[in-house]
Amino acid sequence: LVARMQPFGTSIFAEMTQRAVAADAVNLGQGAPDSGTPPELVQWAHEAMLDGRNQYPPFLGVPELREAIAAHQQRFHGLAVDPAQVLVTVGATEALTASILALVESGEEVVVIEPAYDSYAAAVALAGGVVRPVPLTLPGCELDLDALEAAFSERTAMVVVNTPHNPTGAQLTREELAAIGRLAERHDAVILSDEVYEHLVYDGGAHLGPAMVPECAERTLTVSSAGKTFAVTGWKVGWVHGPQPLVDAVAKVKQFTTFGVGTPLQPAVAKGLALPDAVFTELAATHQRRRDLLVEGLRGVGFTCETPPAGYFVIADAAPLGVTDALAWCRAIPDEAGVVGVPVQAFCSDPAHAPTLVRFGFCKPEESITEGVRRLAAWA
Amino acid sequence: LVARMQPFGTSIFAEMTQRAVAADAVNLGQGAPDSGTPPELVQWAHEAMLDGRNQYPPFLGVPELREAIAAHQQRFHGLAVDPAQVLVTVGATEALTASILALVESGEEVVVIEPAYDSYAAAVALAGGVVRPVPLTLPGCELDLDALEAAFSERTAMVVVNTPHNPTGAQLTREELAAIGRLAERHDAVILSDEVYEHLVYDGGAHLGPAMVPECAERTLTVSSAGKTFAVTGWKVGWVHGPQPLVDAVAKVKQFTTFGVGTPLQPAVAKGLALPDAVFTELAATHQRRRDLLVEGLRGVGFTCETPPAGYFVIADAAPLGVTDALAWCRAIPDEAGVVGVPVQAFCSDPAHAPTLVRFGFCKPEESITEGVRRLAAWA
Ligand SMILES: CSCCC(=O)C(=O)O
Ligand SMILES: CSCCC(=O)C(=O)O
Repeated sequence: LVARMQPFGTSIFAEMTQRAVAADAVNLGQGAPDSGTPPELVQWAHEAMLDGRNQYPPFLGVPELREAIAAHQQRFHGLAVDPAQVLVTVGATEALTASILALVESGEEVVVIEPAYDSYAAAVALAGGVVRPVPLTLPGCELDLDALEAAFSERTAMVVVNTPHNPTGAQLTREELAAIGRLAERHDAVILSDEVYEHLVYDGGAHLGPAMVPECAERTLTVSSAGKTFAVTGWKVGWVHGPQPLVDAVAKVKQFTTFGVGTPLQPAVAKGLALPDAVFTELAATHQRRRDLLVEGLRGVGFTCETPPAGYFVIADAAPLGVTDALAWCRAIPDEAGVVGVPVQAFCSDPAHAPTLVRFGFCKPEESITEGVRRLAAWA
Repeated sequence: LVARMQPFGTSIFAEMTQRAVAADAVNLGQGAPDSGTPPELVQWAHEAMLDGRNQYPPFLGVPELREAIAAHQQRFHGLAVDPAQVLVTVGATEALTASILALVESGEEVVVIEPAYDSYAAAVALAGGVVRPVPLTLPGCELDLDALEAAFSERTAMVVVNTPHNPTGAQLTREELAAIGRLAERHDAVILSDEVYEHLVYDGGAHLGPAMVPECAERTLTVSSAGKTFAVTGWKVGWVHGPQPLVDAVAKVKQFTTFGVGTPLQPAVAKGLALPDAVFTELAATHQRRRDLLVEGLRGVGFTCETPPAGYFVIADAAPLGVTDALAWCRAIPDEAGVVGVPVQAFCSDPAHAPTLVRFGFCKPEESITEGVRRLAAWA
């Protein structure tokens, strides 16, 4: 293995799902719904296969999906996106990694707000770049704008943002995004925005991505995917859109990372993106109920936790239960309690940033959440 | 776009398919069959989706597919492969790129036999490596072992082989493979072997990959995919297997390039790999007939061409028709003749290696081949 990838182990999500399977535990770890795929999507994918749509797609994506993504951005976020500015990718993961490989020179720096999804730093390492982490306060999820400014340098090529945020569910505010945009402009950096939870916003809130903020728009690549919106995390259909020269650069790399994306799945996702508003609002309503059930249950067990405004996850502080090392605890509880969670320190370059915080997912049927909470209570 | 990727344009295959669509031409360019997917595969993928197999797969691949790939290598090639040594990838392209990113340090060299599929050099550039090309004689497809030896150096990390070969259909001999293995051993280099045409071998010939040759076996990563074998080039299900430490290294990178491969497609390919021998021999027999039809037709038009022993393609020399630059000619004939082919110079770092050679594919129904030849004859 090349030196630049040696610091990286197996993804914490894969590790925790392996433990869940081995221990037959309730898996509140990896952010994967067990169910909830709209049956029409399956039917549409099947029809595409019967229709012979089984050969190489155009590497940029099938035209109807690129159009549907552009129309979706207009309909839900008021963004005018030309389908030519949309690149279809193998999930958000490929969109993020190809963007970083395309735009970060060896030795250049990427500002990453932590806790952060693990693939960002790995992709920066693959590019030969250097991560400059900026910690969010926890559990308050505030961005220290002075620390942010200090993380930029003359070598900054990119800043990665993720809103709604994994693992905390926090949303960046318009002011935070504007500040990021001003710093990015001053350093001529690209803003890479991971928005896979864009439709999972609760309590009547709205999604706000940097492409919707004037200070950021002209330098933002927006990444999202079908995985969380349609409960098809295994279909691996994602996308990135933004200014044409940036998207063209990402496409150049993408044709050599995988060439194309599963052809028959693309028209199905295109039709999914055109489903009525009610499908999207029902998705949020269902997850809001699940969130409330999980937050209430975890508090009952003795965890301290805030109610997240968005996303798939609750951050629970296990310190009140006597836990001092969330990583060790998350490795023990699949066997001891029959439940799986993910330690927030796996999202941080400094484990001391979140020593006792555990992420539990609520992207599961209510029975699983109730059973997980019951088991945690029995363990406590 | 980062400097290391600036030499690369849009893949010639994508360009030529765009031209085919624009001109409504017979597409004998990109190696994609129009049809021929076994209907069971579509049914199996549909069943997997109905069965709820729509969420993240294990990033290494679903267990039944890893087992089926191992069993397939035993059954067809006599190779003992442990399923733990198999990694499922987004087509052969991701297998190749992730292998190169995992094993080639910045500044290290990769020996590539040319003509070569375009993604090899692009992946080496992404890794910050340097390609050391070794030309095959054309049209004879002989490997000059002295030139091969001269291409190795103390910086060699890898040698890429491709057998059956795209574009020529040539197969490396046991002697050539053994010589490659001895050089790779002397330089402690990995052999990365692209074998996506393993089931497309004609005239009673057999497939021989480096993993089947003692001089190479212990240092070979073998790459293949479902695309060509089951006419599902758009499903993007491929794989790589080899010694455990090498596969582990590739897996580490692969989890961050795409994480996983389309979940419902994996069990369908697993069942496909267990189909009876007759399915595989019929595939070869069909393509042998198509090959003969195309070779005969092209000779009738006035091209010089050999009969390839394997693969999807015939190499036609257009010099007898007065062509001096195959690239320019391939860009003109979609409109002029209503036919698309691919210039072999797109596979070579030196265009003078193959100035007048054109690759035409026979992975098409006989009507398309006949019509393509008819149009070329009318043009000539
Ligand atoms: C690709 S596995 C990670 C899934 C996910 O988004 C998460 O659990 O954070
Ligand atoms: C990924 S497009 C290239 C298809 C192919 O294998 C070829 O045409 O050589």
